[in-house]
Amino acid sequence: MTELTKDTKILIVGLGVIGGGYAKALTYSGYRHVRCITKNAADIDYAMAHGMIEFGTHEIDEKLIADSELIIFALYPTVFKEWVREHQSLFSPGTVITDVSGVKSGIVEELQSILRDDVEFISAHPMAGREKSGVEYSNAEVFRGANYIVVPTEENTENAINICKALGEALGFAKISTLTVEEHDKMIAFLSQLTHCIAVTLMNSNSEPNLEKYTGDSFRDLTRIAKINDLMWSELFMLNKDALLHEMDSFIEKFKEFRNMLEDSDSESMRAEMRKASAKRELFDKPKM
Amino acid sequence: MTELTKDTKILIVGLGVIGGGYAKALTYSGYRHVRCITKNAADIDYAMAHGMIEFGTHEIDEKLIADSELIIFALYPTVFKEWVREHQSLFSPGTVITDVSGVKSGIVEELQSILRDDVEFISAHPMAGREKSGVEYSNAEVFRGANYIVVPTEENTENAINICKALGEALGFAKISTLTVEEHDKMIAFLSQLTHCIAVTLMNSNSEPNLEKYTGDSFRDLTRIAKINDLMWSELFMLNKDALLHEMDSFIEKFKEFRNMLEDSDSESMRAEMRKASAKRELFDKPKM
Repeated sequence: MTELTKDTKILIVGLGVIGGGYAKALTYSGYRHVRCITKNAADIDYAMAHGMIEFGTHEIDEKLIADSELIIFALYPTVFKEWVREHQSLFSPGTVITDVSGVKSGIVEELQSILRDDVEFISAHPMAGREKSGVEYSNAEVFRGANYIVVPTEENTENAINICKALGEALGFAKISTLTVEEHDKMIAFLSQLTHCIAVTLMNSNSEPNLEKYTGDSFRDLTRIAKINDLMWSELFMLNKDALLHEMDSFIEKFKEFRNMLEDSDSESMRAEMRKASAKRELFDKPKM
Repeated sequence: MTELTKDTKILIVGLGVIGGGYAKALTYSGYRHVRCITKNAADIDYAMAHGMIEFGTHEIDEKLIADSELIIFALYPTVFKEWVREHQSLFSPGTVITDVSGVKSGIVEELQSILRDDVEFISAHPMAGREKSGVEYSNAEVFRGANYIVVPTEENTENAINICKALGEALGFAKISTLTVEEHDKMIAFLSQLTHCIAVTLMNSNSEPNLEKYTGDSFRDLTRIAKINDLMWSELFMLNKDALLHEMDSFIEKFKEFRNMLEDSDSESMRAEMRKASAKRELFDKPKM
């Protein structure tokens, strides 16, 4: 394929909270041929009932796969790799495939190396996860105002990169950026993985009963993502272990510095850290949509 | 006074984001005599223009103070103590005073010891802060579904405790609890102060440019409170230093355990921590209002 249009035949593999959000965003904005393959027949029924897809199946439908120009894999990283290994003979020549994986090392280059030469894989990461899983929690609105990161390698063509960027725009993302695999994984270790480690630790670091009776929104905000899909996130952490360990160590070091300012009653230094944080945080507000 | 009614003469001292929220919540729900003393005349104009108060002044109005049955101090803890020390001769006998201070050690007992015998101070903590300050950001809705903590000592009467609880209800809080000064400060060190230390540290622990272009909501959530009033929070941290240091050390220890699980590629232990955190977090969802 050379261009994403409202007539492009799009196949989404894996109709969970992200795949479902993609289906809604695309179909509801006028893409006419959003099809789907997913494990549970009930999820296809749900998607059809909500007008999210043109049609779908829970089976490996050879004709459907061959009839797809753009295939989006919304699967766990390891499942994604196995799916492609097993079924890539069914792709039509010229098909572009993309993904939503939260880690790129150990996925992108490996997948490109095993993939047929007449099919191109261009990787992407939608920065809009949710703590709930399942198609019934999918929501196209979460992409509005959010960031979309395209992660090309030297193997990728301008054509596929442009199609992937056009997909991000079609989904409604506010900002579309490009990073290398290494840049992506370093960035994600800090912005996403470290935050999940902090939330889980914070949730578990006090076992007093009844804390929920006294809590304010600060604690609620810092632990929203402590409701976590343990299978997926342990997989993501392991795939990005070195970068994540580095970020965890930097955080511990910085946190100890702040702790020591408090122990030394060094209010001025604490205040300087707070002012620096306040100023930096301004940049991260989500654009109002 | 013996009972909070729609006719109680209520004085709010300090019309910032919290004092302003109190004024709105009370006046808008039918309390007829919500008056105000605050530093800036412009804030009185704002409050009058928004129908938030019966009337107010930026001066120490002796008649207004003497005419108040319930006085709510929405000031920084140290400013609150000085205000009472300086002006308590103006209170009428039988006046009940309360506060919104985020820390209670070094405030409650000290204030009760210097206060006139014919006036009673009952302390409370509304768990509904906002990262913005100023009356123009005040919003009565933030109290809906939130927690309100009354912090009595042995000096307090049942009468004042009941008035303070009735105030929490009048403001619209969903859950009203009672804690001792020590329990409160231990709890707040964990739920509120530790979370602010984490948010500030996280914000400052990576100086890569352009991170805002790649961020998702996890990082946004964990750093919302990194926009912080440095003067107020450094004061709160110092007032609760020992309890906060204890919580910071517990957090560091727990975080290192999780870090070591990752280093050891111990996915099973990481997953067990995640499942524990997910289950605990369920309790902290805000009641739907």
